[in-house]
Amino acid sequence: MKFARQAQSLNASYLREILSAASQPEMISMAGGLPAASLLPLELVRVACASLADNSLFFQYGSSRGYQPLLETLEQHSPQSTQPWLICNGSQQGLDLIARALLETGDPIVAEVPAYLGALQAFQLTGASLLPLLSGAAGPDLDQLEHYFKTAAVKLFYAVPDFHNPTGRVWSAETRVAVAALCRHYGVTLIEDSPYRQLRFSGTELSPVSELYPEQTISLISFSKTGFPGLRVGAMSGPAEFIALAERIKQATDLHTGIPQQVIIHRLLNHQQYPDHLARLQQGYRNRYHHLSSELQQQLGQQIEFDPVEGGMFIWLSLNGKSGTEIAARALSHKLAVVPGAAFYAKGATAEDSHIRLNFSNTDTALVREAVARLARAIGAGC
Amino acid sequence: MKFARQAQSLNASYLREILSAASQPEMISMAGGLPAASLLPLELVRVACASLADNSLFFQYGSSRGYQPLLETLEQHSPQSTQPWLICNGSQQGLDLIARALLETGDPIVAEVPAYLGALQAFQLTGASLLPLLSGAAGPDLDQLEHYFKTAAVKLFYAVPDFHNPTGRVWSAETRVAVAALCRHYGVTLIEDSPYRQLRFSGTELSPVSELYPEQTISLISFSKTGFPGLRVGAMSGPAEFIALAERIKQATDLHTGIPQQVIIHRLLNHQQYPDHLARLQQGYRNRYHHLSSELQQQLGQQIEFDPVEGGMFIWLSLNGKSGTEIAARALSHKLAVVPGAAFYAKGATAEDSHIRLNFSNTDTALVREAVARLARAIGAGC
Repeated sequence: MKFARQAQSLNASYLREILSAASQPEMISMAGGLPAASLLPLELVRVACASLADNSLFFQYGSSRGYQPLLETLEQHSPQSTQPWLICNGSQQGLDLIARALLETGDPIVAEVPAYLGALQAFQLTGASLLPLLSGAAGPDLDQLEHYFKTAAVKLFYAVPDFHNPTGRVWSAETRVAVAALCRHYGVTLIEDSPYRQLRFSGTELSPVSELYPEQTISLISFSKTGFPGLRVGAMSGPAEFIALAERIKQATDLHTGIPQQVIIHRLLNHQQYPDHLARLQQGYRNRYHHLSSELQQQLGQQIEFDPVEGGMFIWLSLNGKSGTEIAARALSHKLAVVPGAAFYAKGATAEDSHIRLNFSNTDTALVREAVARLARAIGAGC
Repeated sequence: MKFARQAQSLNASYLREILSAASQPEMISMAGGLPAASLLPLELVRVACASLADNSLFFQYGSSRGYQPLLETLEQHSPQSTQPWLICNGSQQGLDLIARALLETGDPIVAEVPAYLGALQAFQLTGASLLPLLSGAAGPDLDQLEHYFKTAAVKLFYAVPDFHNPTGRVWSAETRVAVAALCRHYGVTLIEDSPYRQLRFSGTELSPVSELYPEQTISLISFSKTGFPGLRVGAMSGPAEFIALAERIKQATDLHTGIPQQVIIHRLLNHQQYPDHLARLQQGYRNRYHHLSSELQQQLGQQIEFDPVEGGMFIWLSLNGKSGTEIAARALSHKLAVVPGAAFYAKGATAEDSHIRLNFSNTDTALVREAVARLARAIGAGC
């Protein structure tokens, strides 16, 4: 059997593999981007689950665009926008549909690096060519971005402006304005991926970039961080002509997203206790972040460095020049799963290997001290 | 926003559009391939739905390969095979993953025509080039198939050997042996799509072609015809190297199929009353088929012709030279939705327009007489 070239170029995701290692006995995992099991809003959907079987329409074929009441909920939650929504199998499928709607072999695209590898993989499956954009505390390097826009026919710019994965960074208000202006000037489509936006636990929320550049931004939202990753439900909105094409591609891909899973998300978003759930989640992650952060400072002191975060799920830990790949491998042997920074660079790209990504949302609070002790052993052994 | 060439070539599915027309008030639909609402096995999954919220693991990220207990059930149900399974969002996603794993622009593929358009769309999104294969009552034209295999570097042969959509045909045992031999001789991958295989209500079951050519057949099964289309759960099996690649593509596409929907299918397949459900479904569809078939003969007599079917969901009705497209349009104005035969040909292909496809699984039995009367008016008006 001869395989297609692009498909063969696809590596197994390091993240998916480490998540599988993370389920070994005795292992403590700070690897995945999983919500805290104890904070999953299961009680808010118990009744919805129990009554699913009462409605046979939920079990028949449905609309490719999505379950109508869920689409209406999304419209109500974004009153400033008139752009249509499309329900996807997680925002990951949104990325895949964007790639297939917009990209052809060789098309240049820009993405902040390090980056969420799932996005890069979806884009690279089309044969697109990645231009890596460096970024700092306030967001991407605007000079480099403009240079790319000037010198290449850039098809899209993929960005995670709120609580970037893996760095946890948030673009400043000025960066948002500047990026919108650059995209508009050069006619580049902006992909604003916002899975973590609602996980802000301190600081002030900033407007999404889509509001500054509505005519050519495609926005992705996820219900995997505030709701349930296991259902695989996400959504995207964008210009009507794009959403119509993405819907036709989705038809050829899987007809539509399953209805019962959309019904559960719809009931969750409309549950009167949903705002309380979000507040509890933010409070819980604030505590978990502070807990991990103080353990890191106490146990590792000068050996590590990290910028504070105001939300999201991750600390981007600098190892002061040590190799993240080696520390992560040693940590695994000490029964601690973490992801080396180099795993967030596209295949073949120059990877910066002096970080590891630590998740603080999923790790049992009682295990954090021991987790950091294992990390300290992994780092210490390399001295 | 500039769209990718292949994506733009994708038409909205006529079938999806007529299904939307079919939901208008007063409309009787014989258009879709929906299971009978009254025969959906909702009672067999009521407890499974009600207990979903008890298990937080069902709502966290899961395995790209699929929910392990469901994979084990599939292995137990196919004891003759050692090939691995991959769970997909309906078998439609299996088709898409096959296309992306195997096909590149310009690759020749063979499919029986008329054909399930969703399959052709998934293949054509990769830019593959379709070689249309004619078929008769016993299966495809073997001379034409060998001619294609001899003269083109055919990448795959897409086939629905059991209760083909739209024709309802079943390949004879001889055809199965001959196709397996031809594929083996020319090294062509066979895609055996079997959504209707378990809907046999008369005659004798024949072995799947995959058993005659296990080394290079990819088998697709669906839970949308025997279970619930609304959940979007299907599965495929094939050579281990192919399934491993398809799993990596699936990771980049949507990470994994949602777990609660897989749990529901797992409980359905393992419910002690599942065999009774299948028997009831087959009996129900036998009755519905005979009912429609005798109404057609009584009300339309010499104006139509059709081969009897032994299962599936469809009658492929010959209009004795009249245009299926015109009759279907006139039927719509008489509040009857049917699909014209021409809708089952790829865009740009020479379509044979003297048939319509009638679904008998979903139409309320009490409405069948009136449905056929409307069809008779649509046909009569064209005399």
